[in-house]
Amino acid sequence: MSLLLITNVRHDGRTHDILIENDRIARIGPRLKVRGARRLDGDGMTVLPSLFNAHTHAAMTLLRGYADDMFLHEWLETKIWPLEARLTEEDVYVGARLACLEMIRCGVTFFNDMYWHWRGTARAAEEMGVRALVAPVIIDLGDVARAKAAKQEILNLLENCGGFSRRLRFAFGPHAIYTVSGDTLRWLSETARNNGVKIHLHLSETDREVQDCVNAHQGLRPVEYLDSLGVLGPELIAAHGVHLNAREIEILARRGVAVAHMPESNMKLSVGGILPYTELRLAGVPVLLGTDGACSNNSLDLFQSLKFAALAAKHDSNDPTCLPAAEAWTMATRRAATVFGVDAGVVEVGRLADLILVDTRRPEFTPGFNLMSDLVYAANGYCVDTTLCDGRVLMHRRRVSGEQAILAAARRTARRLAGGGEAAPA
Amino acid sequence: MSLLLITNVRHDGRTHDILIENDRIARIGPRLKVRGARRLDGDGMTVLPSLFNAHTHAAMTLLRGYADDMFLHEWLETKIWPLEARLTEEDVYVGARLACLEMIRCGVTFFNDMYWHWRGTARAAEEMGVRALVAPVIIDLGDVARAKAAKQEILNLLENCGGFSRRLRFAFGPHAIYTVSGDTLRWLSETARNNGVKIHLHLSETDREVQDCVNAHQGLRPVEYLDSLGVLGPELIAAHGVHLNAREIEILARRGVAVAHMPESNMKLSVGGILPYTELRLAGVPVLLGTDGACSNNSLDLFQSLKFAALAAKHDSNDPTCLPAAEAWTMATRRAATVFGVDAGVVEVGRLADLILVDTRRPEFTPGFNLMSDLVYAANGYCVDTTLCDGRVLMHRRRVSGEQAILAAARRTARRLAGGGEAAPA
Repeated sequence: MSLLLITNVRHDGRTHDILIENDRIARIGPRLKVRGARRLDGDGMTVLPSLFNAHTHAAMTLLRGYADDMFLHEWLETKIWPLEARLTEEDVYVGARLACLEMIRCGVTFFNDMYWHWRGTARAAEEMGVRALVAPVIIDLGDVARAKAAKQEILNLLENCGGFSRRLRFAFGPHAIYTVSGDTLRWLSETARNNGVKIHLHLSETDREVQDCVNAHQGLRPVEYLDSLGVLGPELIAAHGVHLNAREIEILARRGVAVAHMPESNMKLSVGGILPYTELRLAGVPVLLGTDGACSNNSLDLFQSLKFAALAAKHDSNDPTCLPAAEAWTMATRRAATVFGVDAGVVEVGRLADLILVDTRRPEFTPGFNLMSDLVYAANGYCVDTTLCDGRVLMHRRRVSGEQAILAAARRTARRLAGGGEAAPA
Repeated sequence: MSLLLITNVRHDGRTHDILIENDRIARIGPRLKVRGARRLDGDGMTVLPSLFNAHTHAAMTLLRGYADDMFLHEWLETKIWPLEARLTEEDVYVGARLACLEMIRCGVTFFNDMYWHWRGTARAAEEMGVRALVAPVIIDLGDVARAKAAKQEILNLLENCGGFSRRLRFAFGPHAIYTVSGDTLRWLSETARNNGVKIHLHLSETDREVQDCVNAHQGLRPVEYLDSLGVLGPELIAAHGVHLNAREIEILARRGVAVAHMPESNMKLSVGGILPYTELRLAGVPVLLGTDGACSNNSLDLFQSLKFAALAAKHDSNDPTCLPAAEAWTMATRRAATVFGVDAGVVEVGRLADLILVDTRRPEFTPGFNLMSDLVYAANGYCVDTTLCDGRVLMHRRRVSGEQAILAAARRTARRLAGGGEAAPA
């Protein structure tokens, strides 16, 4: 049995020790007497749950800064897709390791991913010690041969994803309603339900998506169209949800769909709005928080996303009481843990030890009137001193093992992908 | 003569040494041979100009997290103003030192301040080694006795602000058109022009301000009203500028007024919009970047403001090409240096040595396709390893001298101000 004792941390306004047995929190209390435990000094730190990134494309760190300040479709068609076509599984592994490193440094220990070469992402998350829900992207463009290949990839995934630890789980990632046929969506949905896996889909990100759907599907808007296919259910994580009307929100609530909100990506790519937070919350739709890929954000620091989400909600609703700090924090912790079925997201005896120690002795936490306000409005991910996942220390005193090699590999890979031309990293 | 040699820094894509003689950059080049210089190892760092915070209330760090997620007028009237009424010069000094510490840690070496007890802010900036333009707040509420006292404070300032270094300069801070009478505004403007000092004013922050002005001043909007008073000129820094129409923008351009943009504050307080960046830029109005006070942001990290400004501009204009990264960077450096008359904002021989060394070996700067993108979209202020102002090293390896004492004093003061009740810091 592995015993770890975190000493003298602030927890709910008191100073406590926290005993971790293997992967779980075993005891919390003042001055615990424990024999044979490794000790980790938490003096001056505040213990909090680690964070959940509800939507990203981890390996896109390789394209960070490659193309910015462009229109979405031009950006995808002239820059992102041509480069992505050249990616190998090894490239994805290299990029996803960089993403894991960046997330660990910002206190994130779970990410919900959709990308090519799923095994590369899974290997990276496994090695780096974090949790991930990994979904291969499915795109068939209505083409029968592509649909067949996509189904084959899903069957391969189901057959071959068994070699990983329980930190790794797998989902299906139909890209969007405009890139995946209704037949394939239905097949994926049935297969997901039969196998107890989640589905991860981009939904209602742009107005064009909505208009194209209305035109192609007898006036149905995206959520209505998906509902007509019978594919909406609690296994679905819908990413974006920017352009939703009241009827669609009601359907999402009724079907138990969760929505991942990526405020920075939506603002940076100017998708024509921001997720209607209050309406979704009032309807009872669980709204989670994600960074999106490092190419459309360009940061994987979920602390930054907390502030963007809270401020964008206030700005767009013209109501400064909208999405207060503590509620934003919940989006990235407890609420996400529930949706993803991870027994963490809160610091409690019996829960998984997915924790962060935050250094609240910094200027931005001073004077310290309100921890939630300070976390959401004043801090950034660098306030995280120590990150644990599954009881294992992944970062301590801001050091993650193997950091230099991960950065060097990412630079090499990005240079090769960009062809060593003008746009290549120095 | 004091000589400092910064070795092996990245500068415009090359590896250079930078020689600083006293307060200025004397030489830049590869492997400089210099005798008798102190050396500062810049290996792995990129040298950049330090940043300018164009609008803040430094001492409001004392109220960080004291009241959030509230409506602007309720927030001011029930929370902020009652507590501010109890502030002493010593409190302001303590709060402003905390602000300087936080800014130095994020690479900011100049701030444009408006607050009570100006001497407290000036003493703090002087001691901490940064530059500041310090303006006492002027509020007369149309009251003759108050107007007289305000004028007396300005005359006192002009007489008694001579004891500081040239890093400190002083301005007049009429709070806003709804708190300062036209007569006082005119008097301040004349006195400012006669003495060559700047004026720092909140302008067109909320729709209510605009409507009240239209009602009170024969249909004139705020900029028109100020123009009718004859107080618009290049000495004016107008903070916010959210609610401006085309005619007002044209007037601001013609009069040479600069506008400070505070995206986080505007979004957090839901002031009903965001500064019309493109229109101001096309008209030729210099737009600068500020954090506002730590109470309405709640961070003084100007790197965060860079991203908020760029993303809010794209979001609100529905144009992702609006306010690209390099232009945002200019707002916080070169453009601000020009407006504030500081011979810095760019790394060049002969300029003041107001510099930062940024650690670009971090995950968020990897792979490194585009430094400006990485700085604005991926980084936060913690990327700053070393901060220099006026040739003096204020932070190195993220250490600022006296940090613990500054934090402790701020906690004590905030606790006393809040009355030790429930809302007091732990």
